[in-house]
Amino acid sequence: MTFSSVREGEASRVAGPDEGISLDELRLAARNHGMPLEALRYDLTPPGLHYVLVHYDIPFVDPDTYRLTVDGRVGTALEFDLASLRARPKVNLTVTLECAGNGRARLHPRPVSQPWLDEAVGTARWTGTPLVDLLAEAGVLEDAVDVAFTGLDHGTDRGVEQDYQRGLSLAAAVGRDVLVAYEMNGQPLPPQHGAPVRLIVPGWYGMASVKWLRRITVLDHEFTGFQNATAYRIKHDTGDDGEPVTRIRPRALVVPPGFPDFMTRRRIVDAGPVELFGRAWSGQGPVTRVEVSVDGGQTWANAALGKQAGKYAWRPWTFRWSAVPGEVEVLVRAADRHGVQPVEQPWNTQGMANNMAQRVSVTVR
Amino acid sequence: MTFSSVREGEASRVAGPDEGISLDELRLAARNHGMPLEALRYDLTPPGLHYVLVHYDIPFVDPDTYRLTVDGRVGTALEFDLASLRARPKVNLTVTLECAGNGRARLHPRPVSQPWLDEAVGTARWTGTPLVDLLAEAGVLEDAVDVAFTGLDHGTDRGVEQDYQRGLSLAAAVGRDVLVAYEMNGQPLPPQHGAPVRLIVPGWYGMASVKWLRRITVLDHEFTGFQNATAYRIKHDTGDDGEPVTRIRPRALVVPPGFPDFMTRRRIVDAGPVELFGRAWSGQGPVTRVEVSVDGGQTWANAALGKQAGKYAWRPWTFRWSAVPGEVEVLVRAADRHGVQPVEQPWNTQGMANNMAQRVSVTVR
Repeated sequence: MTFSSVREGEASRVAGPDEGISLDELRLAARNHGMPLEALRYDLTPPGLHYVLVHYDIPFVDPDTYRLTVDGRVGTALEFDLASLRARPKVNLTVTLECAGNGRARLHPRPVSQPWLDEAVGTARWTGTPLVDLLAEAGVLEDAVDVAFTGLDHGTDRGVEQDYQRGLSLAAAVGRDVLVAYEMNGQPLPPQHGAPVRLIVPGWYGMASVKWLRRITVLDHEFTGFQNATAYRIKHDTGDDGEPVTRIRPRALVVPPGFPDFMTRRRIVDAGPVELFGRAWSGQGPVTRVEVSVDGGQTWANAALGKQAGKYAWRPWTFRWSAVPGEVEVLVRAADRHGVQPVEQPWNTQGMANNMAQRVSVTVR
Repeated sequence: MTFSSVREGEASRVAGPDEGISLDELRLAARNHGMPLEALRYDLTPPGLHYVLVHYDIPFVDPDTYRLTVDGRVGTALEFDLASLRARPKVNLTVTLECAGNGRARLHPRPVSQPWLDEAVGTARWTGTPLVDLLAEAGVLEDAVDVAFTGLDHGTDRGVEQDYQRGLSLAAAVGRDVLVAYEMNGQPLPPQHGAPVRLIVPGWYGMASVKWLRRITVLDHEFTGFQNATAYRIKHDTGDDGEPVTRIRPRALVVPPGFPDFMTRRRIVDAGPVELFGRAWSGQGPVTRVEVSVDGGQTWANAALGKQAGKYAWRPWTFRWSAVPGEVEVLVRAADRHGVQPVEQPWNTQGMANNMAQRVSVTVR
């Protein structure tokens, strides 16, 4: 088999200094959606509130004729239908997923792509069977290097026609917690989340968890398809090959307190004690600390951390704020053992793996 | 009880001639979402793909302590918990809902609000109990004029603090098909669709179907709250009182053919026979005709109409297109007994009740 090695066709675009969101970006925003932040209240994000990013169209897949192929550098190529996947050992895993482009629309200048603000996140209980067992049954050959995952979604990006396809190193692919999943919160996968079968790579940004998974191919070389070599990279200029996007960096989000103005989303809060509640997560390991600033980032105080719902799930936190009348900017940030979220976001051309501290504008009355 | 009679505080805003989508509009677009048009394939829109518009925050309502009050100009004020509503006569109704602002972001100049393109629609099977029976049980007094519906969602809009509240004439409210609904597609309502109880007013734009319904109040005067008197009106200049937004105007949408480019959403189609598929609906009565143009609107031909899934549900249609290589603009439009969708949209200041014909840009190769 061949996998085309792709460099950029057309470069990604960066918006001009005063350029508003374009029609192209709005088209993406109208299709894909974030999690309204008040849904941070739920341990498991309810149906339809989990963030969704679909690169091309949502494929219309008949579960009765669906097949998953395992091939490439294996002893025996395998094919599974949905029933045979469901009959295999079953694992449930609660996982917080975040889009690698979360925060992109807050960058200056703004990389032109799906224009996320803060909300491209969600947590679900995924049910599936370990990928490693499928690979072991097929028999991975000794020269294996990477595993390529191919979805049923098809389109073009920067002039490159493709099925959505991502590669993962063999070492990452054989982690016990990488699932070939067919249920989300105890229900068959919804169409937009990869029905009938998708990959779940816990701890990684969402691009690794290939939806509408039709083929798993073991390679004797590094996978250099578009989504690995071009799209999901942290680049500092357009000539830069960049670094791959991998694990989710730490982030905390707060349920915006009080109530909103319809158009500006500015919050109105009554003076007095306010219990701030939020969640924090990291794909790099446990969240070790959440900090809150109620003075625009001048001073910070620790939030109280609750119990993390699972190794890959977000962690609840609370903070008691004594709100006094005035205009306030609330900031929150999380830390893991690698460090704390930045208050000023380092920039990259494609707006990937941003994790700038959230800011919420509040009028206390 | 008092219901404040509201005129505009601050006027709604219209974007400048070259003004891109603002951060305010993007914040709304990131929370609220349309139905990706490939989901037109489904008779009933799957969970999470139905359009959502939430004015303020999604309330967090405990179904165990939830209560619905019926009061005002009635003989006996009533209170219902969720179990008592569920114990009442049950009606299932398949309803296509559309946001009154659908198409707003396509207007020139663009009214600044939730920036919908074409996709603010969805169809669900709603289960509930007829409103008219609750009103009859309470005993509507002879001086009744309007019925006000109050939600649990709270915020400000143009300086006016409010619970979301809409009024309906008594004549419209006692229609047999107006439901107090507690299930969507056989499941309890999801949070963003009004859990645990909402109103469904079939045939009307979505603003009438009040979510998180907590109170039904019979009035002896016309309801003049913000959402009726100010927000949902078709106005031609800011001094204009305007006409109320009521029933859904006819609209047809097509599943965009072929496959998309990620960023531009331009479609790529192979030359040859292409089966176009879509849906059409009207809240004013049956869809009588769907027309397709494959030459940018110069000529139109009739699509074949399928069976409408219910009195208030969309109607499927198909059209066989012989695609020849080149750049093509496909347009579709529906008609009901009142007329056909416009190709050029008449403008109004708030971008309400637009139903301009859909245009899809296609490269045939």
